[in-house]
Amino acid sequence: MISDKMAELVKNGSAIRAMFEEGKIMAEKYGKENIYDFSLGNPSVVPPENVKNAIFDIIKNEPEKVVHGYMNNCGYEDVRGKVAESVNKKYETNFTENNIIMTVGAAGALNIVLKTIINPDDEVVLFAPYFGEYNNYLSNYDAVPVVVNPDFERFSINFDDFENKITNKTKAVIINNPNNPTGVVYSEKDIERLSDILEDKQKKFGTSIYLISDEPYRELVFGGNYVPYLTKYYKNTFVGYSYSKTLSLPGERIGYLVVPSEIDDYEQIFGGLGVANRILGYVNAPSLFQKVIAECLECTSDLRVYEENKNILFDALTEYGYECVEPKGTFYMFPKCFTADDKAFCEKAKEFRLIIVPGSTFACPGYFRISYCVDKKIIMNSLESFKLLAESFK
Amino acid sequence: MISDKMAELVKNGSAIRAMFEEGKIMAEKYGKENIYDFSLGNPSVVPPENVKNAIFDIIKNEPEKVVHGYMNNCGYEDVRGKVAESVNKKYETNFTENNIIMTVGAAGALNIVLKTIINPDDEVVLFAPYFGEYNNYLSNYDAVPVVVNPDFERFSINFDDFENKITNKTKAVIINNPNNPTGVVYSEKDIERLSDILEDKQKKFGTSIYLISDEPYRELVFGGNYVPYLTKYYKNTFVGYSYSKTLSLPGERIGYLVVPSEIDDYEQIFGGLGVANRILGYVNAPSLFQKVIAECLECTSDLRVYEENKNILFDALTEYGYECVEPKGTFYMFPKCFTADDKAFCEKAKEFRLIIVPGSTFACPGYFRISYCVDKKIIMNSLESFKLLAESFK
Repeated sequence: MISDKMAELVKNGSAIRAMFEEGKIMAEKYGKENIYDFSLGNPSVVPPENVKNAIFDIIKNEPEKVVHGYMNNCGYEDVRGKVAESVNKKYETNFTENNIIMTVGAAGALNIVLKTIINPDDEVVLFAPYFGEYNNYLSNYDAVPVVVNPDFERFSINFDDFENKITNKTKAVIINNPNNPTGVVYSEKDIERLSDILEDKQKKFGTSIYLISDEPYRELVFGGNYVPYLTKYYKNTFVGYSYSKTLSLPGERIGYLVVPSEIDDYEQIFGGLGVANRILGYVNAPSLFQKVIAECLECTSDLRVYEENKNILFDALTEYGYECVEPKGTFYMFPKCFTADDKAFCEKAKEFRLIIVPGSTFACPGYFRISYCVDKKIIMNSLESFKLLAESFK
Repeated sequence: MISDKMAELVKNGSAIRAMFEEGKIMAEKYGKENIYDFSLGNPSVVPPENVKNAIFDIIKNEPEKVVHGYMNNCGYEDVRGKVAESVNKKYETNFTENNIIMTVGAAGALNIVLKTIINPDDEVVLFAPYFGEYNNYLSNYDAVPVVVNPDFERFSINFDDFENKITNKTKAVIINNPNNPTGVVYSEKDIERLSDILEDKQKKFGTSIYLISDEPYRELVFGGNYVPYLTKYYKNTFVGYSYSKTLSLPGERIGYLVVPSEIDDYEQIFGGLGVANRILGYVNAPSLFQKVIAECLECTSDLRVYEENKNILFDALTEYGYECVEPKGTFYMFPKCFTADDKAFCEKAKEFRLIIVPGSTFACPGYFRISYCVDKKIIMNSLESFKLLAESFK
């Protein structure tokens, strides 16, 4: 009596669940500390002290009916204003509260955009490898995913294929910057080229093509790498942001969506996004945490840990013969398997107590994802296993 | 460039927004305290002290990575267990954590159920008058709303019409108990009759018909009225609950869904609901407030205020000649207009500085809704206006 779409999802979902269940069994068998679980993107560092202080301050000092009450479906006006100011300061933009909608994380942001702009059978372009959940978000609104083949050399954008895949039915393009699963940050040159192509195609087809930038990892960049702010390059851009990774608050479901005033049909779209926030059942982003993040806009968790983990893992894996594009951000890397069958490779990895995710989950078979948002000790202890895994294929 | 569905919603939405805007203008003109705004269902009493204490306790004593981290998409197991225990104690049920999913309010609960069970063009039965947002939730999944005409005498269920409206395409029936906008509590006899009809129709058509009970007002009942727990009468029942009204936490978006083990296809459905929580972009109910409500399961805000307001308003309106079924719960009442045109009636009410909502918003023209979750002073001051409004139609 389950719906057809959901029946399919539950069936596919069980494969991943089976992996976790197996992980649990492995942990029981070998001891939890001897299992190197690199499967999940759950931040391993604590939130900054400011989060705790902000919670205490707000609960002590602000009226309860305001802190826990309903507000505009788009969020508290003052919080949206503060977020706009903070983005302006960091990225030299000119947003106001009328360009910000508080959302239930970046997942909520993406869903309200799609709900607002998608008619059934509209095409949405995705760049492989990409976060597999996008498929589900598109399916929610009966959009058709159109996948651009990977650029295997840099894991940037395969521009030739991208140009071919845009049609008069293309309603949106989703970009994840920095990228899950590769850790790649798109360069300014890449973004400029992307924007030029989109401008050309809009002219050619007489359509609006919206660029949706999913940016939960914006602050997680290594060694001074710069993440271009996409609204400055292409006016039909939405930016979805989340505090899940930056402030280590994934469970609180708090983020925002940027909607530039210059976007085509701004008035109608902004109105639609508020309606979408309401009718998708979010109603509004959780109220206390809207106020909390407004007090923590200039803070992050101690994110250096992730770069340290990346350096250790990347150096070791390269030494063991793994091919891998070096991540410039996030807490993921995406090396090539030693066999074309990535699922078999990840199965084999379990023999060495490594839990890693097959690249086919990200529309890119032959590779695997490592989430290195784990304790450094786990990274250090796992190196021997990665070495043995490599050797087992020689 | 907005989607067709959303364009329609934004257009319709603007009528209500216009009402609020006009309310604001009226407040500027006459002074805020001279406008009697009965339009919104925003709790007027503060949360119980336990909420504040729970927040402090949890933030001080529990590990941050757990409090703010990801958990199972269905919610923390221990919280779900405590919710189950509390429901069992109150209603003599036998639920465990495997029957509870923590949700983004009751709106989230309803949406994950619909996402899980609805195929496009499935029929869902609604009892007029009903919360207008149900239309949008059904539209999210391309379900077809089938509206049962009101039982004008008691605002219970028009059983004859109900029986006629169930077909082999009926996938679900939504009931709101206690009811928004009427304040009616369905009696045990009504629930038994409803269950009998559903059982018969399931047999007749060889289908599963799910009853979805939307219960954010369960605790808001007056004078010892009893709200039957529907899973005990009909096994294919989901119950959606929210802490928005009971604990005055509407902005925090926290509630739960009850899924009895006896429900048809329980295993698949429970799996589907977890997937739905994830892919609709909720991911999980906000983590801190899952833990907060687990510490406040036996508390409520001071809800007596609403009964007091009801008594004052109901007695006065009856005296002025309004026809109204007496509410047994919620903070709404739903009197008859003095003219068939409820929109014109609510327009006229503005002349007396009353902001009330036309019954057609609830699929029941000729009536109007009063939300009396306001300060008693506003109630008292508004009585003269209700009197004058009545007289203006004589």
